[in-house]
Amino acid sequence: MRELSHRISSGMQVYPGDPVVSVESALSVEQDGVDVSLLHLGSHTGTHLDAPSHTVVGGRTTAAIALDELVGDALVVHLSPQPAHAVYGLDEITRALGELPPTVPAIVIMNTGWSQHFDSNEVLNHPAIHPDAAAELMRRGMHLLAVDTLSPDPTGEGSTDFPVHEVVLGSDGLIIENITGLENLPERVRVGFFPLPIDADGAPVRAVVLDN
Amino acid sequence: MRELSHRISSGMQVYPGDPVVSVESALSVEQDGVDVSLLHLGSHTGTHLDAPSHTVVGGRTTAAIALDELVGDALVVHLSPQPAHAVYGLDEITRALGELPPTVPAIVIMNTGWSQHFDSNEVLNHPAIHPDAAAELMRRGMHLLAVDTLSPDPTGEGSTDFPVHEVVLGSDGLIIENITGLENLPERVRVGFFPLPIDADGAPVRAVVLDN
Repeated sequence: MRELSHRISSGMQVYPGDPVVSVESALSVEQDGVDVSLLHLGSHTGTHLDAPSHTVVGGRTTAAIALDELVGDALVVHLSPQPAHAVYGLDEITRALGELPPTVPAIVIMNTGWSQHFDSNEVLNHPAIHPDAAAELMRRGMHLLAVDTLSPDPTGEGSTDFPVHEVVLGSDGLIIENITGLENLPERVRVGFFPLPIDADGAPVRAVVLDN
Repeated sequence: MRELSHRISSGMQVYPGDPVVSVESALSVEQDGVDVSLLHLGSHTGTHLDAPSHTVVGGRTTAAIALDELVGDALVVHLSPQPAHAVYGLDEITRALGELPPTVPAIVIMNTGWSQHFDSNEVLNHPAIHPDAAAELMRRGMHLLAVDTLSPDPTGEGSTDFPVHEVVLGSDGLIIENITGLENLPERVRVGFFPLPIDADGAPVRAVVLDN
């Protein structure tokens, strides 16, 4: 079983404007007989799922997302290293794959290499996918787009324009952000994204490669 | 994929003394361009994992628990319906199984039927496993004990005596509490418990039956 999730911890990197994360002691073995922790976090913390309702008024929330949408065979696109603020499209994706298959699995994972910057200031300068490429992948069968960056759209000061979110969530698809641990994965793997069982606009997930 | 987790929601049932749960709006599509929620919860909320450090000073925390300990073949023990405050032991377990196998899978799940009371006052009056039965199951190969109750030990006012926790966590084993959805499961199933990726004394899990 291979880990594809970032650890959630106090003060960790979050999307600008999202709630600050804390994990602190609530009860202790010495005083209370048990150690229990108190967690404060946003629904889009760490490696997490965007439900359609994250950006679409009236869109599905996490309670309406079946586990079967979050588990299955995936195509992993190992892009050539992307520079800061790069926007990659079908050309870069095709080059990474050799050729673009006429149909793609329901889960497509983009490895830009940017997850190595998760705990540094560089995290904000991540590459982004072009909305036209996301739309073409949706036409070819993608239902869930997973990226190793804070967002599939560029992250900027007070940005309220989310074209890739519109393409994917607007078609009732799903997005996973901040996936990690993609190095040397085969192009086809079976993955699972297991969300905290809340009913909300998104949820942290435990992301793993499942053994066949 | 079958769901074995309770939903986490504001004001839900928690173990007496544990942090109160809230899931509230932090950002909204109308005002901020995105819906984001703020979550407050304890590490032992809903269907969750007890790490050894929950009751054992110096015991392992969740970060030291491998995913492979949380995924695998399980023995499901469908006990006859247990009355309030019952303590069931090897006799009841043997009767449920026909015979007690000389070796059991690393994951053993107890179905007492009590998860139906999760959202009622009856939840506190749950049955409990006798510590001798837990110890015998550990000797026969159990590493993880999953129960459909708030605890494998009786839950009482200010209780600080946790003999089953001592048997299981004290031997570096694991406990899953508040599993649900066990009705009509076969006696042998492949399950996965996917914790929120925090480093703590425990963590909420997404519990599922995995397809083979």
